[in-house]
Amino acid sequence: MISPFYYLLNNDCIHSRGKIIPADLEAKIIESKQKGHFPLYVNATAGTTVYGAFDPIDEMADICEKYNIWLHVDAAWGGGLLMSRKHRHKMNGIERADSVTWNPHKMMGVLLQCSAILLKEKGILQGCNQMCAGYLFQQDKQYDISYDTGDKAIQCGRHVDIFKFWLMWKAKGTVGFEQQINKCLELSEYLYSKICNREDFEMVFKGEPEHTNVCFWYIPPSLRSMPAGQERQEKLHKVAPKIKALMMESGTTMVGYQPQGDKANFFRMVISNPASTKSDIDFLVEEIERLGQDL
Amino acid sequence: MISPFYYLLNNDCIHSRGKIIPADLEAKIIESKQKGHFPLYVNATAGTTVYGAFDPIDEMADICEKYNIWLHVDAAWGGGLLMSRKHRHKMNGIERADSVTWNPHKMMGVLLQCSAILLKEKGILQGCNQMCAGYLFQQDKQYDISYDTGDKAIQCGRHVDIFKFWLMWKAKGTVGFEQQINKCLELSEYLYSKICNREDFEMVFKGEPEHTNVCFWYIPPSLRSMPAGQERQEKLHKVAPKIKALMMESGTTMVGYQPQGDKANFFRMVISNPASTKSDIDFLVEEIERLGQDL
Repeated sequence: MISPFYYLLNNDCIHSRGKIIPADLEAKIIESKQKGHFPLYVNATAGTTVYGAFDPIDEMADICEKYNIWLHVDAAWGGGLLMSRKHRHKMNGIERADSVTWNPHKMMGVLLQCSAILLKEKGILQGCNQMCAGYLFQQDKQYDISYDTGDKAIQCGRHVDIFKFWLMWKAKGTVGFEQQINKCLELSEYLYSKICNREDFEMVFKGEPEHTNVCFWYIPPSLRSMPAGQERQEKLHKVAPKIKALMMESGTTMVGYQPQGDKANFFRMVISNPASTKSDIDFLVEEIERLGQDL
Repeated sequence: MISPFYYLLNNDCIHSRGKIIPADLEAKIIESKQKGHFPLYVNATAGTTVYGAFDPIDEMADICEKYNIWLHVDAAWGGGLLMSRKHRHKMNGIERADSVTWNPHKMMGVLLQCSAILLKEKGILQGCNQMCAGYLFQQDKQYDISYDTGDKAIQCGRHVDIFKFWLMWKAKGTVGFEQQINKCLELSEYLYSKICNREDFEMVFKGEPEHTNVCFWYIPPSLRSMPAGQERQEKLHKVAPKIKALMMESGTTMVGYQPQGDKANFFRMVISNPASTKSDIDFLVEEIERLGQDL
């Protein structure tokens, strides 16, 4: 979801690691009100798509309360970390949000698709979506009609996506999900430290990743001694797509890549499959090196 | 979907069988334009939820062309009849629509959920929905990026619902779907003629149903000799909910009911399962009689 502040913020109040800077957010709100606008909604992201960054929700909630602005937390990707006692602190303050989105089909391995929207104010979904179609939701039924939840959703008739998640939760338990998530994050840390110790790989931002996203460049031998500048940048931009194409041709592995702002195409390794192992990470690094060393 | 004419039309330009009356539609468009409004969209329904009525699409398309109004056909429920050479004439003119919705998960038995929206103008979904997120849809991929269709849909990442339908179509063929649909409609005709021949059942509207919806009242012995009027109406209104509750308690069968306009609660039998047989219909009628005879 794109916040109305997306356009206000640009890059100047986004931290180099992709996190909102609260002081800049507040300055932009004040500026916007001075222009006669009415900022009504702020979107905090818990686990951004590319960097896996967590916005400082608690500080943002302070600002939202101060200016009476709706706080939404897009925890589609990061929400799963709430299952982990070790990592949930990254979402401190999420309990203060007016609304939260969360996709158990992302980090938690529930089969596509399973998305939740949670709202603090009771009855708001019903208030927004109910059409009271008498031919669908009879009021004179034998059973408790509070079980008829179809009128709360835009879609009305739909697949019971949450059932898959309920079954998994029953089977694994919260502790099972916690182990699964901790393991994925440990593997990311393993990949991060591996990259830090090699001269042919380079992290896109400094410091340990907060989520399982590990963003890095592979630097082929031909670029290693080239001075920084436009020529190197242009060459580096072509490396990830070329390696990705070779990966697909040889059928050995697949990792996403993308540019971001002024940064050349880089790999974004994301681990959400709890069956992954350290040897998979070793293989990935070796495979990138094998496919990219002659570029 | 609710057309802007929903409010204009009320009941006066709806046929007693739940179909739009083209002359009344045109009169309402003229009236609306005279008031300075700009009617932009007409919704024809191919298979209404309660009566299973098919709006006269061809005549509505003439009117829409004349006044340059977008014609949408909601064929969510009725669209499956296009598979049947015997029944597809009910949607004559659907090829003239600007847009069509169609839920193969309804009449065609595809597993929930499988919904399609078809638009005549190429590129319109992409034009409306694409966000061109560089971190999702890279332009420098190895393969033909026209296969990246995620940017055409609101949801972006989603389940490939159409694959279930594709598999079924491959397995059954168009002829298989035709047989399945013809059979369901034959069973509805069977139920209709059964009801017409009994004094304890009464059809809600006269004439053979167009879709598999058979709308009827069961008239318990206590009401059969009662004169028409408010008292009978009120008693009749309670019959269907009571029988439905008894059905659920005895666990033998389930049929939907609802009121419609000034009509008391009536049963709406819908047959979409091709494994249904005439003996299921016989059982249903006997079961309603068994459960309702003492009411």
